[in-house]
Amino acid sequence: MILILKPTATANDIADIKNRLAARGLRPVIMEGAEKVAIGIIGETRSHLPVDQVQALPYVETIRRISDPYKLANRAFHPENTVVNAGGALTGDGHFAMMAGPCSIESREQIIEIAKAVKAAGATMLRGGAFKPRTSPYDFQGLRAEGLELMLEAKRATGLPIVTEIMSIDHLPLFEDVDMIQVGARSMQNFEMLKELGKTKKPILLKRGLCATVKELLMAAEYIMASGNDQIVLCERGIRTYETATRNTLDLSVIPVLHERTHLPVVIDPSHATGVARYVPAMAAAAAAAGADGLMIEVHNNPAAALCDGPQSITPDTFEELCRRVEAVRTALAVHDEEARAA
Amino acid sequence: MILILKPTATANDIADIKNRLAARGLRPVIMEGAEKVAIGIIGETRSHLPVDQVQALPYVETIRRISDPYKLANRAFHPENTVVNAGGALTGDGHFAMMAGPCSIESREQIIEIAKAVKAAGATMLRGGAFKPRTSPYDFQGLRAEGLELMLEAKRATGLPIVTEIMSIDHLPLFEDVDMIQVGARSMQNFEMLKELGKTKKPILLKRGLCATVKELLMAAEYIMASGNDQIVLCERGIRTYETATRNTLDLSVIPVLHERTHLPVVIDPSHATGVARYVPAMAAAAAAAGADGLMIEVHNNPAAALCDGPQSITPDTFEELCRRVEAVRTALAVHDEEARAA
Amino acid sequence: MILILKPTATANDIADIKNRLAARGLRPVIMEGAEKVAIGIIGETRSHLPVDQVQALPYVETIRRISDPYKLANRAFHPENTVVNAGGALTGDGHFAMMAGPCSIESREQIIEIAKAVKAAGATMLRGGAFKPRTSPYDFQGLRAEGLELMLEAKRATGLPIVTEIMSIDHLPLFEDVDMIQVGARSMQNFEMLKELGKTKKPILLKRGLCATVKELLMAAEYIMASGNDQIVLCERGIRTYETATRNTLDLSVIPVLHERTHLPVVIDPSHATGVARYVPAMAAAAAAAGADGLMIEVHNNPAAALCDGPQSITPDTFEELCRRVEAVRTALAVHDEEARAA
Amino acid sequence: MILILKPTATANDIADIKNRLAARGLRPVIMEGAEKVAIGIIGETRSHLPVDQVQALPYVETIRRISDPYKLANRAFHPENTVVNAGGALTGDGHFAMMAGPCSIESREQIIEIAKAVKAAGATMLRGGAFKPRTSPYDFQGLRAEGLELMLEAKRATGLPIVTEIMSIDHLPLFEDVDMIQVGARSMQNFEMLKELGKTKKPILLKRGLCATVKELLMAAEYIMASGNDQIVLCERGIRTYETATRNTLDLSVIPVLHERTHLPVVIDPSHATGVARYVPAMAAAAAAAGADGLMIEVHNNPAAALCDGPQSITPDTFEELCRRVEAVRTALAVHDEEARAA
Repeated sequence: MILILKPTATANDIADIKNRLAARGLRPVIMEGAEKVAIGIIGETRSHLPVDQVQALPYVETIRRISDPYKLANRAFHPENTVVNAGGALTGDGHFAMMAGPCSIESREQIIEIAKAVKAAGATMLRGGAFKPRTSPYDFQGLRAEGLELMLEAKRATGLPIVTEIMSIDHLPLFEDVDMIQVGARSMQNFEMLKELGKTKKPILLKRGLCATVKELLMAAEYIMASGNDQIVLCERGIRTYETATRNTLDLSVIPVLHERTHLPVVIDPSHATGVARYVPAMAAAAAAAGADGLMIEVHNNPAAALCDGPQSITPDTFEELCRRVEAVRTALAVHDEEARAA
Repeated sequence: MILILKPTATANDIADIKNRLAARGLRPVIMEGAEKVAIGIIGETRSHLPVDQVQALPYVETIRRISDPYKLANRAFHPENTVVNAGGALTGDGHFAMMAGPCSIESREQIIEIAKAVKAAGATMLRGGAFKPRTSPYDFQGLRAEGLELMLEAKRATGLPIVTEIMSIDHLPLFEDVDMIQVGARSMQNFEMLKELGKTKKPILLKRGLCATVKELLMAAEYIMASGNDQIVLCERGIRTYETATRNTLDLSVIPVLHERTHLPVVIDPSHATGVARYVPAMAAAAAAAGADGLMIEVHNNPAAALCDGPQSITPDTFEELCRRVEAVRTALAVHDEEARAA
Repeated sequence: MILILKPTATANDIADIKNRLAARGLRPVIMEGAEKVAIGIIGETRSHLPVDQVQALPYVETIRRISDPYKLANRAFHPENTVVNAGGALTGDGHFAMMAGPCSIESREQIIEIAKAVKAAGATMLRGGAFKPRTSPYDFQGLRAEGLELMLEAKRATGLPIVTEIMSIDHLPLFEDVDMIQVGARSMQNFEMLKELGKTKKPILLKRGLCATVKELLMAAEYIMASGNDQIVLCERGIRTYETATRNTLDLSVIPVLHERTHLPVVIDPSHATGVARYVPAMAAAAAAAGADGLMIEVHNNPAAALCDGPQSITPDTFEELCRRVEAVRTALAVHDEEARAA
Repeated sequence: MILILKPTATANDIADIKNRLAARGLRPVIMEGAEKVAIGIIGETRSHLPVDQVQALPYVETIRRISDPYKLANRAFHPENTVVNAGGALTGDGHFAMMAGPCSIESREQIIEIAKAVKAAGATMLRGGAFKPRTSPYDFQGLRAEGLELMLEAKRATGLPIVTEIMSIDHLPLFEDVDMIQVGARSMQNFEMLKELGKTKKPILLKRGLCATVKELLMAAEYIMASGNDQIVLCERGIRTYETATRNTLDLSVIPVLHERTHLPVVIDPSHATGVARYVPAMAAAAAAAGADGLMIEVHNNPAAALCDGPQSITPDTFEELCRRVEAVRTALAVHDEEARAA
């Protein structure tokens, strides 16, 4: 950690900060520049130094961290890729997840029909919402517990492991047979819920908040891991920017960024990111080319009758075509990389 | 509501949408422009028309709402200003709230000393965090239930009503003697919690999410109101933008915008918005001049020893000076406006 | 165009707007909703109706356009893909441009060595900056006219057409032998310059501004086209968001969005977008998979000695590998799409 | 400046960077932390160290500056407030500028009538656009040279100094009798123009770009100052964010931020920021309360007939009322601050 002092800091101030650091077993390195003094701090600052207190000292201008604030999620300490196993469906380290299904579960017929269709097309997991976070209290809120039941029926009918969102930790008992629990973008910093999910051993799909930084996403994962659960898949689903041509802005650069910083797998949700069904296939292929560990795609057998998010849902036929194109991209790159290694 | 059809829409498509609308008791007005056809829809679209389904029709390009999606929070239907009464402290319709106190409750001595100081300086309510949402699991998480106890002691010692944040609806029983419950920025779209808070009659301080629009903030209020509670104070605390000179960007324009759209009072939190104690007094005066119904200010007797957010906390002396300047601005404008009305 | 009147609008107001529209030869369609009145306007509003004047009428709440404000760049009026020919290098409609070279031209040896290397690896055009827009007046500002001379030497030595940035229309005479003139992100709305470039017949590479919307990018192209030049390549190079893990946020969704809205080709610059050399290859492959018409890549023979933007420059070896992977992706998708069409 | 090395950096790498720094007369201070090595660099890094080259070294993770990159605009080196004198109208160090007038100059009658009205109401300068940057080539582009002539007539008729925008340095000769030249938001990083404006001695009104940081705004001022002109007024006019309730988001926090970092005066333009006339008075009062050195307000005698930006223009009557409220706020704070100092 580096402290930068205000230009007005005095020798007394420097003595004061030295004392404070020494009292915590930390060693300062003083660098007197032409305009300002900087102080490097050697030692275990992550746990021993309350950043806010130091920042509030009247002679401190800013503090800059050197080490990352996340440890368990950090690739530096865990170089091996994590593989998440959700009911037999693997994600990460070469295992590509294809999670597909409707935004909302609407009826037995609907979810089972879609489940069969996406399985036939190549899905490895079934997604579907029982508890739905909706901006308006007047919009359809999901079938809730009944929806979970139907989802489990679809699982039994097709053998596809399922992933579905939790909106309140009080609902956790209902999720016993769910293979992967989704934490939605709006809940990414519901820290009390993250802690409780950390105590389960369930695989978690952790969606990036609408304006969360990469670092905050990793800190949210760290909350879950610090409570004992390391079966986490990270999911980018678009961030909020000034651009309105798409619903959100899909930030595909997080794929190489996250792969560098963490060992956790990264999947991409182009359906929520773009909000427009006809843009989904292009962005799915792009995600695969950038090295994503999986995709989450909204598929509906009749988008114009969907109770939620129809505009971004593709049909099973389009999904099948999407799977083939993603496969073509992944195969081409795998062959190329194999040859490049051999050469 | 207005539908805009794709340039490729056919006469059959127009007949189809007419039938769909008629089936729902809605009347279409067709406008054939040079390039595209637009269709105005007359009737109660808010509840009768599933927007997502219409948007997903293959010949629909976009949908544009005319009426606001919020009703209970809407000034159009409730022209009178709402006054929120939290343990005797009033906010709204000319009643100015001055909520002040530390970021976190740290000890009995600390909270009682600060409570006395802010009361003497002019605070109308005591703020303080018992449950603390922290980005890192390794940071101080608040004194939790014990902190609430100390907060209540400070209330008894000073007579100041208190406002403090709830992080999980499971903690609600602990908040029985709290005068106003704060929903933090990260929880603004915790819809399950909003619904439960709507069932209480407690005054709620609803903070705008870090990247929430004005409309989303009003929809969050609508969730609470739709469950039966209309004692809501809205709070702007800075939004996330690309600018890093301040922690967030304080969006003071929401004051006239919200006063136009809703009858609920609006308070401003310049401490969290700027993240820098020395910028707080200027932004507090600005908020008062723009017509805010109150302020929420972090005050600490020893910012450099604060366990949380010290850098943005001002001292009791600075707070007293801030109160006087805010009062000077409010008085000057009130006198001016009175004279202008008389003239 | 749709006008939405304030809830307080009266019958007199409606009569007033009807008169105003009639006076301009426009036909209104009145839609009286439960809460507000909307008025559809039939006719050529793009040129006949001054939007700002109508918006300023005291009883008008908002105006919503139906037709796009751009005409010449609009695919609706020009369904065929545009192919831009810059000294023989084609971009668009299946022709993939690979523009590569250093951020800045530094010396004869440097630019010629890099030109040869990128040509050998698969570049179709040489990029390089002679006039450099730098945030600080104290940073290297480019070799300017001398740099252009060296660029032309590299062109003669390799046969590669060149693309380089113009910063002031006064420099235009120096660009006579340049094959494609780049308008940088900071100049995208330098409207006086766009008009002048429209009078030349030079191919233009128009970079999206750092916070320009898709619509504004298309309007900037419209400026050039309205002055007579339709040889324009659009370039996405990252937008400014709150995320700092990459320098900017690469918005790859613009590829399908722009292909839908315009006939102009779209190339992607992952070097400026990410600002980090090691993220460039992944994003280049992603851009190709999403259907980009080309790439612009910074390549330097010795990034650690580059006078500008070294951190985002890749070496010729990495560039060669990048070209092969991009080619693998493009071939796989072309083969797949061919088979899908045949089936 | 602080270099942070990658966790994989070796002893050889450290020796290498030491040599490179020594070769430039810079002294390194090595800090070996538990996870990474940081290197403080003592000496005149601003001019002696090419940041991009160092950042591109393969073992360097990041670079963090300690000193600000702007020197002439920096308050640290010029503690006294700058006062800008434009034809007798002073801005800064207690002199409050009230710049008012129409968005566009439309006719002799219009500009003279408005000039007289705003002067009577309390304006210290007349603003008005002759050259207009418009997003669409089909919108009114201003009266250009003829508009400047009319502006000068209004100046002669009222004695008000004038401020108007330049869009191309080629137009500079037309601005000889203009008292203050405005650099619009879209031109803030037109560096070639900034350099030329630096060679004049004209006062410059430098508007913050739509997504410019405070640092970039100061670097743009530095460009002008480095060429010899220090008569600069900075102007905040709203930044682009995700929020659409106002046209842009007015960032009033820049007032205390800029006053801390620079000696240049700061004025606020709430008309362009909000884009809505009825929000302008509240934000004008807020700007004054936050300590702004002036305001720029759009005033039109007939907003519904304005050729540009009518929706954000207020009438002369509203402007007069705005001036009185701003005066009330400024007086109240001045009286309070005087008393506080005396006490």
